[in-house]
Amino acid sequence: MSEDVRVEVGLGERAYDILIGPGLVARAGAEIGRRLPGIRAAIVTDENVAQRHLEMLKTGLDRGGIASSTIVLPAGEKTKSFAALQEVVDGVLAARLERGDAVIAFGGGVIGDLAGFAAGIVRRGMNFVQMPTSLLAQVDSSVGGKTGINSARGKNLIGVFHQPKLVLADTAVLDTLPIREFRAGYAEVAKYGLIDRPDFFAWLEANWQEVFAGGPARIEAIAQSCRAKADVVARDEFETGDRALLNLGHTFGHALEAAVAYDGARLVHGEGVAIGMALAHRFSARMNLASPDDAARVEAHLKAVGLPWRMADVPGGLPDADALLSFIAQDKKVSRGALTFILTRGIGQSFIARDVPVSEVLAFLKENHPG
Amino acid sequence: MSEDVRVEVGLGERAYDILIGPGLVARAGAEIGRRLPGIRAAIVTDENVAQRHLEMLKTGLDRGGIASSTIVLPAGEKTKSFAALQEVVDGVLAARLERGDAVIAFGGGVIGDLAGFAAGIVRRGMNFVQMPTSLLAQVDSSVGGKTGINSARGKNLIGVFHQPKLVLADTAVLDTLPIREFRAGYAEVAKYGLIDRPDFFAWLEANWQEVFAGGPARIEAIAQSCRAKADVVARDEFETGDRALLNLGHTFGHALEAAVAYDGARLVHGEGVAIGMALAHRFSARMNLASPDDAARVEAHLKAVGLPWRMADVPGGLPDADALLSFIAQDKKVSRGALTFILTRGIGQSFIARDVPVSEVLAFLKENHPG
Repeated sequence: MSEDVRVEVGLGERAYDILIGPGLVARAGAEIGRRLPGIRAAIVTDENVAQRHLEMLKTGLDRGGIASSTIVLPAGEKTKSFAALQEVVDGVLAARLERGDAVIAFGGGVIGDLAGFAAGIVRRGMNFVQMPTSLLAQVDSSVGGKTGINSARGKNLIGVFHQPKLVLADTAVLDTLPIREFRAGYAEVAKYGLIDRPDFFAWLEANWQEVFAGGPARIEAIAQSCRAKADVVARDEFETGDRALLNLGHTFGHALEAAVAYDGARLVHGEGVAIGMALAHRFSARMNLASPDDAARVEAHLKAVGLPWRMADVPGGLPDADALLSFIAQDKKVSRGALTFILTRGIGQSFIARDVPVSEVLAFLKENHPG
Repeated sequence: MSEDVRVEVGLGERAYDILIGPGLVARAGAEIGRRLPGIRAAIVTDENVAQRHLEMLKTGLDRGGIASSTIVLPAGEKTKSFAALQEVVDGVLAARLERGDAVIAFGGGVIGDLAGFAAGIVRRGMNFVQMPTSLLAQVDSSVGGKTGINSARGKNLIGVFHQPKLVLADTAVLDTLPIREFRAGYAEVAKYGLIDRPDFFAWLEANWQEVFAGGPARIEAIAQSCRAKADVVARDEFETGDRALLNLGHTFGHALEAAVAYDGARLVHGEGVAIGMALAHRFSARMNLASPDDAARVEAHLKAVGLPWRMADVPGGLPDADALLSFIAQDKKVSRGALTFILTRGIGQSFIARDVPVSEVLAFLKENHPG
């Protein structure tokens, strides 16, 4: 009937489906009701998403016979707080939902992380459904079961692993995203190619314009990304090993985000990851691990799609190399003067490097610093 | 070397040991360090326990080379709150502990539930060590991985399953407990006999005075209780079936606690469970499921140890039978006029009864109401 693509996340008794296709918001009641018959639901969303899409979701749930209440929160990273967590938990309990009922996260990564955390702790774990409305959330945060909020001492330091029962990724709602946000999400799509799928990266180089335009190529890119992440997560659900590969580009990226004090007007997460991936490839070339041609290829693709790819692309300037290094060291455990990085031997050949000398990182930052 | 009794909780890769014996607080560093080498720890405790035993624990940890910080909270059920949870989480993060470091719960059930919850959500799950200092916590809340806090809408509605790596039950610290608190904990010890260990119940009838006095009989009673609970938990870690047997006496008991507005001066949890167990046996006899002689035997034993065993034993009077029923119905899902209760066919033969008519419960409450 529908043209949805289905990706299965193989986690034994916690296995679940990701459905990807246009119009899934309107069909949510049918898809959820088929898998979780007779439930009621609490929708957790933000003001922006509610304004654009909530009515369609309510109608879609009604059609499937699912009664629902709604908890609307302010949009933005500040919502990943203890106060918002308590608000969601209280709202779910006020709706008198039982363990077998569902919390539905309807929004981007912030809403998914917060609502998933709430679902994981109300009655020691309720059913949870992800309905990601940003490209970033569809290909990254909605897959893998990580949930959480921020602490004054760092991002995502408080949370649980709580797998959803179902992920519904409506590819049509992405048309309402600002282009800058879509692009930032695309950085994580490209990441999966760079980690271990060279053919997918080559396909993106040839087809990225169709992915941005919408239609089958977009669905295919999202499905490939979910499959890639699901493979890694199935191998390492609780992040004790291989899952660290998903951090490709994130060490440099987080340092840049921290350096602009998480000011989204200057740099959003996906943009930080884009620059971080380019730097990880360039640094790998400098360490004679990969060819400079591969670094150039990554830089060229990011540039082509309109993503930032070098430190000079961060508007407003950056602190000096020593300061950037201290942001990296803050993010990571520095053991005996060495850092853990995701480095690469070429396109689609990334690996976990556990003994990267701090001195090399500092020299690299100095060479590539725009200031 | 030591005379500790060891009980293993068989949960596959989450299996852990319970050590039971005198002096374990002073030996904590050695026992923890043997299993979790090189860690640091955050001790979570309350003001009463800190005053009596914290110095000995700090010394014990120091001796094992375990550096520790301490978070001290007010004693009492009100500490199972969102605000206290945030305080513990912030304290653990402020101590810069990593996932492989440990949160140590040093106190009764309130501290264990709260600290376990914090350990379950900091960095999506840190190592956790239970050091229960009340009899109730040693035989009940420290075994099984349930953690949580209370909501305005009910007790323990928010939490996670998070198994400890080790439980150290120091039987000597129980000597500092008020006798009323020790007795209340003893109700849960007797419960394990009544659930499915008739020989243990008979042993308690013969030996309860030695259990109260301390020494080997106390260690034996605690070890038997932990074994009994560990067996149930190993069969049903996430409470989807058999684990409900542990609620013997709790349906009536919770209703009585609610009826006195959780006023511990009138009725503490274990006392409610004691009356609840006697009522469950008497009600089972009334339903012709068990012999009235068994109900009389339970009542006689509770009376002998000084525990309350009938509704008339609650000081200050109780609301009428209809009101008590509404507290029961609030606690449970009432489906089609029927309630789920733990009933029994005799001593050590309890079972889950899913279709208990509300009308029978009401009639029983009226017959047994003191007012």
